[in-house]
Amino acid sequence: MKIDGTPYRSIWVDDADRWSVRIIDQTKLPWAIEIPRLTTPEQIAHAISAMLVRGAPLIGATAAYGVALAMRADPSDEALETVVPMLAATRPTAINLRWALMRMQRALSAHPPAERADAAYAEAAAICDEDVATNRAIGEHGLGLIRARAQGRRRVNILTHCNAGWIATVDWGTALAPIYMAHDAGIDVHVLVDETRPRNQGFSLTAWELGKHGVPHTVIVDNAGGHFMQRGEVDMVIVGTDRVTRAGDVANKIGTYLKALAARDNGVPFYVALPSSTIDWTIADGLGSIPIEERAPAEVTTITGRALDGSMLTVRIVPKDSTAANPAFDVTPARLVSGLITERGICAANERALAAMFPDQALQTAA
Amino acid sequence: MKIDGTPYRSIWVDDADRWSVRIIDQTKLPWAIEIPRLTTPEQIAHAISAMLVRGAPLIGATAAYGVALAMRADPSDEALETVVPMLAATRPTAINLRWALMRMQRALSAHPPAERADAAYAEAAAICDEDVATNRAIGEHGLGLIRARAQGRRRVNILTHCNAGWIATVDWGTALAPIYMAHDAGIDVHVLVDETRPRNQGFSLTAWELGKHGVPHTVIVDNAGGHFMQRGEVDMVIVGTDRVTRAGDVANKIGTYLKALAARDNGVPFYVALPSSTIDWTIADGLGSIPIEERAPAEVTTITGRALDGSMLTVRIVPKDSTAANPAFDVTPARLVSGLITERGICAANERALAAMFPDQALQTAA
Repeated sequence: MKIDGTPYRSIWVDDADRWSVRIIDQTKLPWAIEIPRLTTPEQIAHAISAMLVRGAPLIGATAAYGVALAMRADPSDEALETVVPMLAATRPTAINLRWALMRMQRALSAHPPAERADAAYAEAAAICDEDVATNRAIGEHGLGLIRARAQGRRRVNILTHCNAGWIATVDWGTALAPIYMAHDAGIDVHVLVDETRPRNQGFSLTAWELGKHGVPHTVIVDNAGGHFMQRGEVDMVIVGTDRVTRAGDVANKIGTYLKALAARDNGVPFYVALPSSTIDWTIADGLGSIPIEERAPAEVTTITGRALDGSMLTVRIVPKDSTAANPAFDVTPARLVSGLITERGICAANERALAAMFPDQALQTAA
Repeated sequence: MKIDGTPYRSIWVDDADRWSVRIIDQTKLPWAIEIPRLTTPEQIAHAISAMLVRGAPLIGATAAYGVALAMRADPSDEALETVVPMLAATRPTAINLRWALMRMQRALSAHPPAERADAAYAEAAAICDEDVATNRAIGEHGLGLIRARAQGRRRVNILTHCNAGWIATVDWGTALAPIYMAHDAGIDVHVLVDETRPRNQGFSLTAWELGKHGVPHTVIVDNAGGHFMQRGEVDMVIVGTDRVTRAGDVANKIGTYLKALAARDNGVPFYVALPSSTIDWTIADGLGSIPIEERAPAEVTTITGRALDGSMLTVRIVPKDSTAANPAFDVTPARLVSGLITERGICAANERALAAMFPDQALQTAA
């Protein structure tokens, strides 16, 4: 999508040297656009774990380029067997990371070492291009839902949590793809943007993205979404996800579950947008089986923002003797999900419907 | 309660001059304890609207002293008829404010102007003393719930939202009174403290209070409570309230409704602690009838905390072109409330039960 008129993807190979990896440092948004140049798998791992890049699809694409950088330096079997688990350990919850790494490993194992660097760059590029195509398809299917809702209405109000926009993917986004398409199609969409404490991806990333694209939006604290649903001011919720079980349970940014409960209580449709690479066919029970990342207490006890003089500052907002807990994700049970917006269409959140829409993938795992 | 070993109330008449009003400036907590001296009704009004004092019971007590300051300066009928609506307009949602002002007006109207200053100070002091006694009774009734839950358990985990502690009242608090009593009785209570964006009363006030009293607690973002309930790590929720309708609907700090939904979804008891002065007998339907204060967008778009050098700083956390909405309260329907902890005992959240427990008040309004 565009930043001030210039089209960007969220990750690309450097135009000049044609091998190093460029990303947008998302910890600096919305205040600065910094484009670090990554040259080693270790830098890639740090970019993922420190969340310079985040969002399940983008994490997968970034890890793929981490393998490519490793193969460029050393294409041996040993190097491949070292880099994959190193990158897999950076974040535990998003399944796309594992999916992308397994795909890279499978593709590269078929090549002799001498061909692996080229093959790795080609496979990483394919993952990125497919992500863009997948998200465009998600956007088109979601657009149908928004268009149906817009019939006879002045405006469609959509609440979203965290950031599942173009910078959470290679381009377009998952939850935001239908919104961009609706806006571009002239539908009057308005987005309620949850802050998404503790890391504030809603304010820092989603509001920034939507603003840069010109989509009308209002930022609200995470506490407020239920109130707006009670007042009839939310027509639908669309969020992304880090992992969906084969039964349709949804792991997503902490707080998603609360919005799903409020949506059900108020008859508001609750949609989850995802590429099928986010489905974990090996597990059914999300609450029991999806590992939930516990991140540093400092993410809770401090907040970083822009001071009046324009500098970036971190302030502490908790008394010094208080301890904090910081689970990064929660699990929304399938029973609260109105539908999964996938690249193949809208799917009910249950095992039978998912297996029917993705028989190739479901069978492949069961085999 | 105590601050570093010294007993405090949250409001008192100055010991030296015996007429000016002392409060703890709660906008400075937890980083500094400042005790401004208020000498005019206008200063009282500002202290309420700018939230130097907050919490429904404390707002009522503070407004009562605002009337006393006015009567000291001018005890005429005209002055009384001017100060009451001026103070009533400071915050729209909490019913205790109106309750305290009506009580002052009724008490003072019975006196000739020459006696009104003394009568006003006496009535304000009575409101404060009664608040302390009321909250002690709330604490004892709530203690029974915690004690019952503690049977055979190592620890009782209680989640609370916003601040309904001693500094939200004259002393003891409402939601926190049972917790202080349980802790003092040797029960192993542990409190999960919601941040409570946008003004962060959970982190700034509740964590501070609990820490000063030595009650074990963990701070969490507002998004996390549902996750902890899903994991069985919350035994009960106790919150305060700004207004309860005669049918048991509960207005409280924005986000309370989401925690009530999560409590119901996970079979966690959800209690609301309140003095009966918080009940609005004139209305039944909370969603339709309770005015919800909309506060300044800057509360959402900025956060104030302590910088590394110890100074207080405000940082902006939203892109400059994004607008914010900031409803300060939401309404939790009575159907989600397990019980109301009042000074007369635990009451079901419905019209019949409330009228049966408070026949004097219910009849008085209907008459």
